[in-house]
Amino acid sequence: MDDRRAPRDSEKIVRNLKLILSYDGSEFAGWQVQPERATIQGTLASAIGRLTGENVLPQGSGRTDAGVHALAQVATFQTSSSIPTENWIKALNDILPASIRVLEVTEAAPDFHARKSARAKIYRYRMHRGAICPPFLARYVWHYPFPLDEVAMVQCASLVTGEHDFTSFAATDPAPSALGEILDHRGRRGTQGEAQVSNVRTIFSSVWTREGDDLIYTVRGSGFLHHMVRNLVGTFLLVGKGTLNGEDFGGILGARDRSVAGPTAPASGLYLVSAEYAG
Amino acid sequence: MDDRRAPRDSEKIVRNLKLILSYDGSEFAGWQVQPERATIQGTLASAIGRLTGENVLPQGSGRTDAGVHALAQVATFQTSSSIPTENWIKALNDILPASIRVLEVTEAAPDFHARKSARAKIYRYRMHRGAICPPFLARYVWHYPFPLDEVAMVQCASLVTGEHDFTSFAATDPAPSALGEILDHRGRRGTQGEAQVSNVRTIFSSVWTREGDDLIYTVRGSGFLHHMVRNLVGTFLLVGKGTLNGEDFGGILGARDRSVAGPTAPASGLYLVSAEYAG
Repeated sequence: MDDRRAPRDSEKIVRNLKLILSYDGSEFAGWQVQPERATIQGTLASAIGRLTGENVLPQGSGRTDAGVHALAQVATFQTSSSIPTENWIKALNDILPASIRVLEVTEAAPDFHARKSARAKIYRYRMHRGAICPPFLARYVWHYPFPLDEVAMVQCASLVTGEHDFTSFAATDPAPSALGEILDHRGRRGTQGEAQVSNVRTIFSSVWTREGDDLIYTVRGSGFLHHMVRNLVGTFLLVGKGTLNGEDFGGILGARDRSVAGPTAPASGLYLVSAEYAG
Repeated sequence: MDDRRAPRDSEKIVRNLKLILSYDGSEFAGWQVQPERATIQGTLASAIGRLTGENVLPQGSGRTDAGVHALAQVATFQTSSSIPTENWIKALNDILPASIRVLEVTEAAPDFHARKSARAKIYRYRMHRGAICPPFLARYVWHYPFPLDEVAMVQCASLVTGEHDFTSFAATDPAPSALGEILDHRGRRGTQGEAQVSNVRTIFSSVWTREGDDLIYTVRGSGFLHHMVRNLVGTFLLVGKGTLNGEDFGGILGARDRSVAGPTAPASGLYLVSAEYAG
């Protein structure tokens, strides 16, 4: 027994695989694995386990919440499987539900990590402005048909660009906030158990655009706090409604106090668009 | 008591309302009301009941099966409610789930009936041909990434135009077939209890087109048998695969025998596009 096992183990080559994934988050309790609940990470881990017999937990570029979608989430995991890289897409997609699709599988450098190596991420928030939301979009937008000063929202969007402490837009529940995104703006990593986790992030671009009946917010940044994009959208909405003006918005950003910002926009409109890496 | 009630009843004006509806059929057991199951007709009847206190069963232009969608289904029902016609859209959409939307409500002539008055209907079948089906389309297409001779399918489509007995493409279960569509090609009506229901229908147009990664079948006809569009699509697919040629297809149409045609394509790709009426 020992004779057979030892040589095999020593021959095994461990590869670091990088996946690009798209998913409809509507029926998942978010990215992060949870007991007894369907999650993207857990479903993906099961599929990898079925293929390889290995027990691995793929790491995502960031955790998406329940109901949040992804166009190109990045995930990494290590495997000793001999399945050729080019065969992984079809093999995983044959096992995964149609609501999760693997778009690309490549072998990455051994030290590449989907979250730790990320330099920037892009999120998009899709608000549907038509009077009646087509039933085929209901899971994929926030339907908001009421009057909004969209020009004021467009003008306000750039206020969040640059380096800021985004405490006003962070989820108030301490655990998910600290867990949500522990890469700080200089690429330093917080630790889950740390008492202080920096809420400073750098936003490279922040724009509202109109595409047909959709009003879309696109934001690219070094990292994002838990609920940050949805809280930004909820606060931009108050500007659109005339409850706040641009100066008020700037004051909220400076206040570092969640209680002064707007409500959290619904998960259904939010998409993780992509994660960016050096090189 | 009697004094109050009698004059009110005699004043009631019964109106015949015509609705145009769009729905995502994914989570419904079809149009037709069934005990203990979520159906479009039942959900709509409940919403009307909540608004008016009336117990009505709206009649659709045709019954769609479980998982089949509608872009513009037409339904009629009679009401004594004094709610102005222009207020019905918002009132119903506030009650209905986001997967069913009322697009239009108008008052129709007393003898107008969504199914009996229909002169033609259009169905569309959406097949996704990309190698990987985006998760956001999974509920709304049939994903078929395998090789197909699409030119052969396009050429074959017109074979079904004209007046034919479509028994080869009718569901074999007798009850739903007879129930599914009882308007015959001359606009005569079958009765549910009749031993013989004509399977002759007139198809005005039948085309396959390419739109990006989608291969789309659009068919307009006087009426359709239960499963007819999905069985046509499943048989066109055999032509695309080279299992059948155009001559075989013609022979199947002429055979009036369900067992010689292809399989039933999945419900997820099928849409009732619209119903047409005289005048």
